[in-house]
Parts: sequence; structure tokens; C-alpha cells
Amino acid sequence: MTDRFSSILPVALMVLPGPDGTMTFVHQIKGPYADNWLLPGGGVEPGESAEAAAIRETAEETGCHVAACSAFAVYEFTGTWAQGSYHLMLFGFLADRAYRVPAGFDGHNVGAVRQSRIGEVPLHSTDLQILTDAGVASYSDGTIARALAADGITMTAHRVSGTTRVPVPPAS
Amino acid sequence: MTDRFSSILPVALMVLPGPDGTMTFVHQIKGPYADNWLLPGGGVEPGESAEAAAIRETAEETGCHVAACSAFAVYEFTGTWAQGSYHLMLFGFLADRAYRVPAGFDGHNVGAVRQSRIGEVPLHSTDLQILTDAGVASYSDGTIARALAADGITMTAHRVSGTTRVPVPPAS
Repeated sequence: MTDRFSSILPVALMVLPGPDGTMTFVHQIKGPYADNWLLPGGGVEPGESAEAAAIRETAEETGCHVAACSAFAVYEFTGTWAQGSYHLMLFGFLADRAYRVPAGFDGHNVGAVRQSRIGEVPLHSTDLQILTDAGVASYSDGTIARALAADGITMTAHRVSGTTRVPVPPAS
Repeated sequence: MTDRFSSILPVALMVLPGPDGTMTFVHQIKGPYADNWLLPGGGVEPGESAEAAAIRETAEETGCHVAACSAFAVYEFTGTWAQGSYHLMLFGFLADRAYRVPAGFDGHNVGAVRQSRIGEVPLHSTDLQILTDAGVASYSDGTIARALAADGITMTAHRVSGTTRVPVPPAS
């Protein structure tokens, strides 16, 4: 774990609406934000696109197989935790529609999954900006800055207006 | 080198206008794009913002100290080279104005520096999209896709419309 967080970690997450105006949260059990309700997501694997990582991690953690999503922001987060410093490059995606977590689904690598209205979950400081950028909440700059400062987190948020993908054609 | 490129490498570069409608290029001597004229830039260090990395690498490679710049896109590039696969997460910045490379400046970790009009330099395939996104060139989607395919490169370009930075206040 120390090695993993001693360098820059590329991660991707999904803002995943649920039924009846809810949002999907997972109880994180690992990493610098352990023991918080966070948005589903995790590390991008070498050779994997950030979008594919967000979809894969969301399926693993929530049981929801997102058909399509779009990037709305890329974040740089730095801070410290029990293991030392960490530095995340985080790609945020918004799912195309609401998905319902399958009944009885427990999640993989997370403590629990829930779909609740945003005001009914204790949000991690990083999620205030993320949910606002995704257009599903509207926290003020001051509220966000105070929450991040209380957690000792520095954030740079690059809002994304559009994505172009150029795949390599299949080998002939 | 193999270790470095076996995981995902965060890098930052600068689109750096020069005098008389020129752009600034450096002759790369290391890494998967060695022996090409590229835009100045390099790896983001742990704890360093992508913007700070772009400014630092530009100073090292071109002698130009950029006072301000803005992010215009974040890229995911994957491909293969002599050492195996590589995977870059690349933050692109545009300098606030034109800068002149100091006379006699040789650059650090690069083979050479030049300021030329875009049409007068053999461009690497990745730079076609980057210069277009920065608003200093206008290559077509087809031209870009063909050039990347010829180099076996997969690209995802997330265009950035604005950046917010929330620093941790100085310790009191």
C-alpha cells in the first residue's frame, strides 16, 4: 500500500444516479479515504481507459453495468494519511441514466453500497466539488474550500466540455 | 526506464508560442517518443501540480519561464515502443503569451530547442490533436486519426473548459 501511494495514482469514478432521485455511494474500506461513503470507482489499470476503469469498478462495487457515461472533470488531489502522502489524478464520469443496485448485492472491495439522496449521506470533502461539477448538487466554492481545508486536501478541478476518442483500428 | 513505463505515467506539456507566429519545439532524446520534435514537457512529480510540472519542464527544456498558463485538455495515450507498452496521462497547457528562447540556450534533457512555424517542423502524431485543441492549428479529425493509427497510438482527448484550484491555507 505504501508503494502504491508513494507515486501518483490514476483513478476513475462514476457519478451514478439511482432510483427516485438518489445517488449511489459505496463505503470505502481501503486507501486514504477509507471509512467514508464515496462514489464508486478505483484505480485505472495500465492500458485501460479511464472510462473503462470507471465502468469496471462501478460494476464490481455496485453491481450496476453502466452502458454509457461521459467525463465531466479531471481532478488532481494531494494530501496525507496514515501511510504518508498521496497524489490522485481522478477522472470523473456521469452515467447516462439512473441504475438500481441489484437486491442483495454486497459489492466487491467495499464495505457496503447504498442509494440515498445526497443530503442523507455524510459526504467526503472531495465529493462536494465532484457532485457539483457533475450537475447533481450545487455546493458553494466557500463550502467546498472549507471542507477540503479541514481534511488537508489540495484540489485542482479541470472541467471537461467534451471527449474525443481515436482508437487504433483492429489489426488486419 | 522499463519500470517507469510499465505503469501509467502522468505528464504535462506546454503549448508555448514564440516570436513571429512560431511555436516552441524540443527534440526529445528519451522515452517512447524519442527522436521527435515535441512540445516541451515531462513527468509530473508526486505532490506537484500538473501546471507546476509544465512550467518547470518548460523552463528546463527551453529556458522560458512561463508566468501563467491554462489547461486546455487532458489526454490518455497508449501505445508500444522498444521497451513494451506505455500509457500516458497528459495534461496540456497553453502559455499566456509568446516567449523567446534565450540566445544560446541548449536545453536540459533534450537534444535541441527551436522556435518555428508549425508547418516547418515534422510534427509527432500526438501533437496534431494537441495543437488543434490549443487553438493554434486546425488539423481535421481524419488527418489526426490516420497519423495516430500509423504510429499505433490510441488517444482519448478530454477538452478542458475551466480550472478551479483550492489550495490548503498555510499552516497558522
